[in-house]
Amino acid sequence: MSFKVDSNNVEKVIEELNFSKSNGLIAVIAQDWQTNEVLMFAFANKEAILKSLATGRAHYYSRTRKELWEKGESSGHVQIIKEIFVDCDADAILLKIEQNVAACHEGYKSCFFRKLNDKGEFKIIGKKIFNPSEVY
Amino acid sequence: MSFKVDSNNVEKVIEELNFSKSNGLIAVIAQDWQTNEVLMFAFANKEAILKSLATGRAHYYSRTRKELWEKGESSGHVQIIKEIFVDCDADAILLKIEQNVAACHEGYKSCFFRKLNDKGEFKIIGKKIFNPSEVY
Repeated sequence: MSFKVDSNNVEKVIEELNFSKSNGLIAVIAQDWQTNEVLMFAFANKEAILKSLATGRAHYYSRTRKELWEKGESSGHVQIIKEIFVDCDADAILLKIEQNVAACHEGYKSCFFRKLNDKGEFKIIGKKIFNPSEVY
Repeated sequence: MSFKVDSNNVEKVIEELNFSKSNGLIAVIAQDWQTNEVLMFAFANKEAILKSLATGRAHYYSRTRKELWEKGESSGHVQIIKEIFVDCDADAILLKIEQNVAACHEGYKSCFFRKLNDKGEFKIIGKKIFNPSEVY
């Protein structure tokens, strides 16, 4: 079961959010709803938020490609939204999600699969779950 | 004990990070190192990252005040860095921290203290830990 908001009430949500500080975008953190592992960070525009609220699946806005995208649209690795939180100044939201397979397009469960050591090196600590060349 | 990086190695860290997509800033998620609760979202510039690496305490950059700040500098609610992770495209980092008292200036442990309901309303679900008017 995903969390959705009825279409009659979505405009209220948009009004509560602050899109002004990041050129029409809001920061979005996706967190595993059961383990609390942080899986992904991205931005969303109003349209992406509306799509997320309507479908119960996480949608984002790519600053690089300048377009709305649904997580998993090509890989099938969709994110089912379970809960949505907003921060104090309303410029960031936290999605508690159920991640299908893995969040990272590089094959890891979480995009945060590299950890810094005290020599200043980022070392891979995540386990590879799928082979990107077979999925994309 | 906080996590720090020796000053001889900090430039390597900066070179790994992508500050170009948010006007010289990088997204920073602060997460409780023990419970995995997401506590705060903010941005950092290079100087803030360098300060964080050198001191073991989280520093950020305020887009509103246009200045570097240390979390807790006025409240005492500092964030002791335990671990640092970077995401796949290196434009976001995750700090696992030990939060002194609370992360949110409004008195809550986490800045994400409001949860969306299916009527499109954000409802306070966090517990107030301190009275902001007594701290700030």
